Amino acid sequence: VEHIRAVYHVASTAADVARLARAIAVEQTVEVPEELIDERIGREIVGRVASISDLGAGRFAVALDYPGGLVGGLPELLNLVYGNVSIMDQVKLAALELPPRVLGLFRGPNYGVAGLRELLGVSGRPLLATVLKPRGASDDRLRAIAHDFALAGGDLVKDDNNLFDESLAAFERRVALCQEAVAQANVRTGRNCLYLAHLGVPMGRLGPCVEAAVRLGVRGILVPPLILGLDVVRDLAERHGLLVMAHPAFSGTFLQDRGHGIAPDVLMGTIFRLAGVDITVFTNHGGRFTYTPQECAAVAEGCRRPLGAIAPAWPAPAGGMGFDRLADMTAQYGADSVLLVGGALLARPEGVAKAAEAYLARLRELFPERLVEPKRDQSPGA
Amino acid sequence: VEHIRAVYHVASTAADVARLARAIAVEQTVEVPEELIDERIGREIVGRVASISDLGAGRFAVALDYPGGLVGGLPELLNLVYGNVSIMDQVKLAALELPPRVLGLFRGPNYGVAGLRELLGVSGRPLLATVLKPRGASDDRLRAIAHDFALAGGDLVKDDNNLFDESLAAFERRVALCQEAVAQANVRTGRNCLYLAHLGVPMGRLGPCVEAAVRLGVRGILVPPLILGLDVVRDLAERHGLLVMAHPAFSGTFLQDRGHGIAPDVLMGTIFRLAGVDITVFTNHGGRFTYTPQECAAVAEGCRRPLGAIAPAWPAPAGGMGFDRLADMTAQYGADSVLLVGGALLARPEGVAKAAEAYLARLRELFPERLVEPKRDQSPGA
Repeated sequence: VEHIRAVYHVASTAADVARLARAIAVEQTVEVPEELIDERIGREIVGRVASISDLGAGRFAVALDYPGGLVGGLPELLNLVYGNVSIMDQVKLAALELPPRVLGLFRGPNYGVAGLRELLGVSGRPLLATVLKPRGASDDRLRAIAHDFALAGGDLVKDDNNLFDESLAAFERRVALCQEAVAQANVRTGRNCLYLAHLGVPMGRLGPCVEAAVRLGVRGILVPPLILGLDVVRDLAERHGLLVMAHPAFSGTFLQDRGHGIAPDVLMGTIFRLAGVDITVFTNHGGRFTYTPQECAAVAEGCRRPLGAIAPAWPAPAGGMGFDRLADMTAQYGADSVLLVGGALLARPEGVAKAAEAYLARLRELFPERLVEPKRDQSPGA
Repeated sequence: VEHIRAVYHVASTAADVARLARAIAVEQTVEVPEELIDERIGREIVGRVASISDLGAGRFAVALDYPGGLVGGLPELLNLVYGNVSIMDQVKLAALELPPRVLGLFRGPNYGVAGLRELLGVSGRPLLATVLKPRGASDDRLRAIAHDFALAGGDLVKDDNNLFDESLAAFERRVALCQEAVAQANVRTGRNCLYLAHLGVPMGRLGPCVEAAVRLGVRGILVPPLILGLDVVRDLAERHGLLVMAHPAFSGTFLQDRGHGIAPDVLMGTIFRLAGVDITVFTNHGGRFTYTPQECAAVAEGCRRPLGAIAPAWPAPAGGMGFDRLADMTAQYGADSVLLVGGALLARPEGVAKAAEAYLARLRELFPERLVEPKRDQSPGA
């Protein structure tokens, strides 16, 4: 029998932790008083306490095995491993191991690390990405940023997560402008810079927007999985074969309490990859936000660790990353990372084109770049 | 100009709090360095710091006004008021006030308090609800619980949030059995007990499942909004005109850190109502979970407070609620609440029917019940 292994870090005492472990196993599967659990249900449904170990300082690691047959997709998996237990105090989902049957339910990222490198024709160095913003800037201004960045040889340019269009027509107009600007620059450079359109819209507009974007030649999207719903993102990725960049909006509710929630590698690595995320944006240490180097390293590790046939994803550190951070960012995250530089690049006095050139030149000093012909027509999910 | 007023409780110092307030206002709207904010964008887009007050103990209340035109639906609203700021340390969304234009984007609960009372034909007392569980029990066993509870005069019977069907056919079979069992009991009682089917399934199955349930005569659904996505629930509610009960799975990630996340009345009251939730299940104090009486009262208040033309919702305290808790639960939550008694009722030695009768008799002692003819054919969203 294949099991889903979930490891929780809990606050408890040595005397009480076995009771708490069993309570979690019951809560997450049958949610009834013990006397209602008969022998068969106890054997086939209820989670099994596999081990308990003392982490010191009043914390314990509780490993539970849930029968792998309890889930049919992402909503059931999320409910099983962290649904009700999220409402307990000081219970963190610290690790998650999925058996082949469960992994087989998911396609994972359409491109992943290797697929995006083929699409771009860029090997050997980290990718450089920027952001079309601020909200309120004219479409022409956003178009110019996209064009100049692509012309300088940048790899990815995405909409800001705050961009908002009054109507489907306004979305199409803006996306067409930016996509065309990047395409024109690509003709001149011979490269394949990709534009990612933002899809943080209500359900009724999600389908029409993504269809419009695909029709305009857009290959990738920026989505906030924890706002839209993780399975909405999975469904979009599978249905349209797109490159998916995940924005971390709303993610702090899972990550910010270090004794509760979901470990960053589990949420932004394993779970995001199940949701089809190719690129995981997270706020790097030392910028405007407060994650530690260890937490950031965990996200990167979660993006890359073996996960059955599911491709590795790209960690994309962001959040106030200036030019002087490039060397230490690339030293930490290595070649297979996306350096997302938004405001810090846009604010450079020399302009977007020259700033992007300088960033890329620095990356090439740090990593030997190998360029090949981009696979523009690569079909997704290959 | 109409504004969205968001009040954040933040950890700061008197010397730094003004800077932090401005940083949040910029982060949530334009997310660029100050030098990139021109006069027009500063006036039209960036949030305005309306007030700062000292809460003591190193906490401050920061009230921000965002232009109401910045959102077109629920995903944009969630991103605006708590997207990036969720990744800051110790910033809680403590209050949210929405202007008429924004409220007008939402239909809210299809039934709410008055609509559900009409549908049931029950006035004057709290409603009694139970749960079909445990997972792993046979369809016949679940069917029998539904039948006996409805025959005893119970008001609502819902699937457990852990129920899982291998296939659409299995879902249809189980839902048909439970719906029919309740309908048969209703013929004998003359009442209109409602069965709510669980919809915690992947996107591709969501539509077929809800359509099957509606075809079978089901009027209500149980959904986990924070797993499916809040806007998915809103879309389901609007599209199918259903009675929506929200399960709190995954909600602890927003609520459990008392210095971070979203205040319970804002999340499970205001935001859930925008998502079309008629009944908000939450874990009552004194049961298996750890919310305080004040936090539970806040949920109930958030369900009921004025919100434009959006109907009030039902608070549904749950989580280990035995018979001896009825008097204090009803004293706290009043007549317009749903008492959700699952395992505590199923475990009663006298059986489901007699236990439900006893619960209802006790409720009628505490509140004078008024029964009228149920409006079985009431069209939703009236």
